[in-house]
Amino acid sequence: MSESTNGTKAAPSRRALLGWGGAGLALGAVAAGGTAAALRTGSSDAQPAAAAGEAVPFHGPHQAGIATAVQDRLHFAAFDVTTTDRAALVKLLKEWTAAAAAMTAGHEVGDGAYGGLPEAPPDDTGEALGLKPSRLTLTFGVGPGLFEKDGKDRFGLKDRRPAALIDLPAFPGDKLDPARSGGDLCVQACADDPQVAVHAIRNLARIGMGKVAIRWSQLGFGKTSSTTPDAQTPRNMMGFKDGTRNIAGTDTAALDKHVWVGEKDGPAWLAGGSYLVARRIRMHIETWDRTSLKEQEDVFGRDKAQGAPVGKQREHDEPDLKAMKDDAHVRLAHPDSNGGIRILRRGYSFTDGTDGLGRLDAGLFFIAYQRDVRNGFVPLQQKLARNDALNEYIQHVGSAVFAVPPGVRDKDDWWGRALFA
Amino acid sequence: MSESTNGTKAAPSRRALLGWGGAGLALGAVAAGGTAAALRTGSSDAQPAAAAGEAVPFHGPHQAGIATAVQDRLHFAAFDVTTTDRAALVKLLKEWTAAAAAMTAGHEVGDGAYGGLPEAPPDDTGEALGLKPSRLTLTFGVGPGLFEKDGKDRFGLKDRRPAALIDLPAFPGDKLDPARSGGDLCVQACADDPQVAVHAIRNLARIGMGKVAIRWSQLGFGKTSSTTPDAQTPRNMMGFKDGTRNIAGTDTAALDKHVWVGEKDGPAWLAGGSYLVARRIRMHIETWDRTSLKEQEDVFGRDKAQGAPVGKQREHDEPDLKAMKDDAHVRLAHPDSNGGIRILRRGYSFTDGTDGLGRLDAGLFFIAYQRDVRNGFVPLQQKLARNDALNEYIQHVGSAVFAVPPGVRDKDDWWGRALFA
Ligand code: HEM
Ligand code: HEM
Repeated sequence: MSESTNGTKAAPSRRALLGWGGAGLALGAVAAGGTAAALRTGSSDAQPAAAAGEAVPFHGPHQAGIATAVQDRLHFAAFDVTTTDRAALVKLLKEWTAAAAAMTAGHEVGDGAYGGLPEAPPDDTGEALGLKPSRLTLTFGVGPGLFEKDGKDRFGLKDRRPAALIDLPAFPGDKLDPARSGGDLCVQACADDPQVAVHAIRNLARIGMGKVAIRWSQLGFGKTSSTTPDAQTPRNMMGFKDGTRNIAGTDTAALDKHVWVGEKDGPAWLAGGSYLVARRIRMHIETWDRTSLKEQEDVFGRDKAQGAPVGKQREHDEPDLKAMKDDAHVRLAHPDSNGGIRILRRGYSFTDGTDGLGRLDAGLFFIAYQRDVRNGFVPLQQKLARNDALNEYIQHVGSAVFAVPPGVRDKDDWWGRALFA
Repeated sequence: MSESTNGTKAAPSRRALLGWGGAGLALGAVAAGGTAAALRTGSSDAQPAAAAGEAVPFHGPHQAGIATAVQDRLHFAAFDVTTTDRAALVKLLKEWTAAAAAMTAGHEVGDGAYGGLPEAPPDDTGEALGLKPSRLTLTFGVGPGLFEKDGKDRFGLKDRRPAALIDLPAFPGDKLDPARSGGDLCVQACADDPQVAVHAIRNLARIGMGKVAIRWSQLGFGKTSSTTPDAQTPRNMMGFKDGTRNIAGTDTAALDKHVWVGEKDGPAWLAGGSYLVARRIRMHIETWDRTSLKEQEDVFGRDKAQGAPVGKQREHDEPDLKAMKDDAHVRLAHPDSNGGIRILRRGYSFTDGTDGLGRLDAGLFFIAYQRDVRNGFVPLQQKLARNDALNEYIQHVGSAVFAVPPGVRDKDDWWGRALFA
């Protein structure tokens, strides 16, 4: 495996799974190679860019999948912890970490021990065999329920709950489905190939069987944000460019100020981590589609063709907020209207069949990362929920918040180690 | 737009939508270019291959999306016709055809008439702007309910119902959800970019508002079949290569024998068409994942790593059916066990969140094309439903059947013209 100058490795196809029914001989070596590749530790804060198909380094000071250039597809899963045994949970998190390191490097789960054992279930479910690493990232978070549920300190972690990991307040207009909200743990899988993302979540669920259960999961078929301002901005299901103004993955100053939890922010176990807010936002696309172009553009304060702010020509021109309607989404959400608040948006479009009324169940699975939700999503959404012209066309139907630990440093480190230390 | 030797055109990005808020001047020309490109008529039976990103010709003797090299992603929609007005339905089918021709060529819907009318809703919802044609195909079918529903001849078409368009019989083990079954019309959208497929269905639904309503829709994130035997065979959610033995898109003899409705088969309006069976097949993946490798391989009669038939080395080696267990899926489904029956499979994997019991709602959205369902899917499935070892791990939860008209010949032709003639 050749190492390129920017720290990514050349894209191999996933290894042929020699262990299945074959001699299994080269497997140990391949697995060891995977570990060696995974040992690489990042040194800069910003994630190096990986070309489509390649592997994104798993280890580093921050978890990948936040500042990483946004991949095309998403499979997001929230888990309930069903075991009450702290040691079992810790064991699972170590197993998950090893599996995540292997899968993000483009390998299958497991060490090939089943190679000679056709009587055992395979370590990996196999559907990603032959696919490229596809820039898979797996980003792990812990929800409020891990620290305390129904008044119980389930795993002796209650004192370690970050002050910023609040239960999100109710917002005007929310119509949250509990079956699509919350979760004790989450894993965000992003990849350029959806099969690679689905495979990753499915294998983590499989490994967790009996200790965790999937509470909800969400497939996102198309990204609606960008952390690479030079790339083409994707369009959301309303047809508008989405992600024009966002925190760039290379903007280390903005990341440090708005995304990464600082040393002094506390708690110590979360330094270098972040907070993730996920909102499943249904769009009333049939109503939207009957709305005039002018109204659509007024709603956002940008034009539909170019994405330029009102009165400007080009997408990346500086917005003139006063030229927009008072209730325009961009006017309300812009940092200048909010004392400088910025969040890193990383949402995806979804379409989940129909709603039983002849309408597509479609919208935006909104994901935002920030240093403190109390100075990030919460005040922004409090304002948007009250005033945003967009509210006529959307409804928030799912919600979750997670603290996202810092990166896994090396092969001895694991998701949540500092938390459980 | 340059025409390449194999009849596909070089991949343009979708045209910049000049009509939105801009001068709108070049729009007429662009739309005309799209129509000109769409005028191309295919002359051979087999669909020419289009490179990833390119456009697949819309016009020809057969609809694209059947023999076409299988694209990576699917959005399938079944519609109920809600209008009782035959003329309104015909008008819609003409509008759908024009929109389908434009979208498959990589253009937006509409003629730019709204360019100067910001007071009107845009003709196209916009989310595919800037994306490549992505080999989009739109394949249209008509279900039994179009001919007769609740004993009523709704559109004067009762006499035109093909004898082969039967209501599928109940099969042992079926657990069909009516909300995911049936439909008066269907459109299968396949593309290498899911956003392009979703955009297409969504715009057809929008155009059909008030005349048709989406009954159900299904996103398929990964293909599980191949009509190009030389390409890498994809893997299904059970981790097995799927589509190894299938009718190749270039095998005109097999297509004529097993897929296309012949002149003498009747009815005349369907000559050159086909029949589509769709089955939503849920996989009990948690049970499967706990099953030994040996059992998994016995179930299919092929090995998991290579996809080779029992006792053979390579995927494309001729299967030795007698070497397989009596109830092996491949043994039961192989033409030699079924008097030569062959179908063209074109299924996709799906993952639609969770089932409320902590399990992923995942499986195979099975699609098969054949010349006559009574000599295709029905007898095959009657046998599989009774004997297949796979049944322990799957359940059919949705079902639909459609007659698929022949291709749209030219710009004056439209989906269903011969049927309504
Ligand atoms: C379905 C719901 C939403 C849609 C369709 C949507 C769409 C958009 C669009 C099209 C833009 C302009 C382009 C850009 O700069 O990215 C934008 C900007 C933005 N949105 Fe949203 N958005 C939604 C929900 C939210 C929510 C819930 C929040 C936060 C609570 C939010 C925060 C922002 C921010 C901070 C900006 C950038 C403003 C600026 O700096 O100019 N959005 N959104
Ligand atoms: C979840 C359900 C199913 C799964 C996972 C599945 C999987 C497979 C696999 C792995 C193969 C072997 C590789 C290949 O030749 O493509 C295969 C072959 C085949 N399957 Fe299925 N299948 C399913 C349902 C069905 C159904 C419902 C039918 C038809 C009623 C069917 C018909 C066939 C046929 C005709 C073959 C080729 C046999 C041969 O010529 O060797 N399958 N299937």
